[in-house]
Amino acid sequence: MKLPSSLLNLINSFSKLPSIGEKSAQRLAYYILTKRPELAVELSDALNKAISSISLCQNCGYLSEDEICEICQDTSRDPSIFCVVEKPVDLISIERVGGYKGYYHVLHYLWSPLKGIGTDKLNLDQIKKRISELKVKEVILALSSTVEGDATALYIASALKDADVKISRLAQGMPKGGELEYVDDLTISKAISNRLTIN
Amino acid sequence: MKLPSSLLNLINSFSKLPSIGEKSAQRLAYYILTKRPELAVELSDALNKAISSISLCQNCGYLSEDEICEICQDTSRDPSIFCVVEKPVDLISIERVGGYKGYYHVLHYLWSPLKGIGTDKLNLDQIKKRISELKVKEVILALSSTVEGDATALYIASALKDADVKISRLAQGMPKGGELEYVDDLTISKAISNRLTIN
Repeated sequence: MKLPSSLLNLINSFSKLPSIGEKSAQRLAYYILTKRPELAVELSDALNKAISSISLCQNCGYLSEDEICEICQDTSRDPSIFCVVEKPVDLISIERVGGYKGYYHVLHYLWSPLKGIGTDKLNLDQIKKRISELKVKEVILALSSTVEGDATALYIASALKDADVKISRLAQGMPKGGELEYVDDLTISKAISNRLTIN
Repeated sequence: MKLPSSLLNLINSFSKLPSIGEKSAQRLAYYILTKRPELAVELSDALNKAISSISLCQNCGYLSEDEICEICQDTSRDPSIFCVVEKPVDLISIERVGGYKGYYHVLHYLWSPLKGIGTDKLNLDQIKKRISELKVKEVILALSSTVEGDATALYIASALKDADVKISRLAQGMPKGGELEYVDDLTISKAISNRLTIN
């Protein structure tokens, strides 16, 4: 059976979103049209406003309604530490936890030859420029503990080896609250080799 | 940290969609803004077009760009059978399978006192009107095999008991390809009590 073309279009657009397949896209479209038509207008407006008012901070790559984001504008931060993350959500997570008061750089990509993403996407020149401008002493590579995260961290570390900065990564080990019995082998092995001396 | 208000708005709108929580909504918003800005425009347009051109068929409750949907307009269908479904997707599923050539009625709701949905939402008058107009001989209640689906089916069946129609439900039993070992107890019990005679 043929669906109305505007319905097909809507299903098709929804299914282009990450982790939304054909079936979910159908469900979203039918839900909006039959149960919450006012949400269609709301979501459409929100998309239009967001896309017209938000762009990437020219400094760090985070999202901002201004050319330079709120964090980069905040002069009370510590310029000596500099945290590299993959995605804006990662930055949010670190800010939510609190404790870190330096500046950021958002990569938006991890080095992944399999996905056709080369190291040119990592915008290393901007990282180097900011490190020297801010007189950074330590770069924290807060990347995911995956093959791509590891490769990207190693690449950035080697590219920065001439810059006079300490480079660190997030600790790898047992997740808080994790029971040894259920933690995977690789994590246990990392937790043993990176074991901490108590006294 | 404060997020830009237009970003918060977008995340908020996404999180109103079914089965999309706060975290998924964030991920969708960041994905659209940082990786696929053109998708924001596309989705916004698709929403606007769908909401302005699609409404519920005045006859059967399915979605249509016309007042009366394609199925109701199709005079080659068999008016003697009439299938009641909950959602537009259910109708699509039955059409995809093929074989059924009668007309439909889409309820949009199942009777659910717990969710505050009374039997007045089921639009029984329209069902009765169409049954008599079409001279329907059999009503198939193709509702989910859940508590709410069962209650709604029983309610509609009792409301139609004065109408001179046969009322049937979808068969309950073993799913095709299902191994007995993994099928739940209630399904096995239904499959035994509704067992089919082979010879």
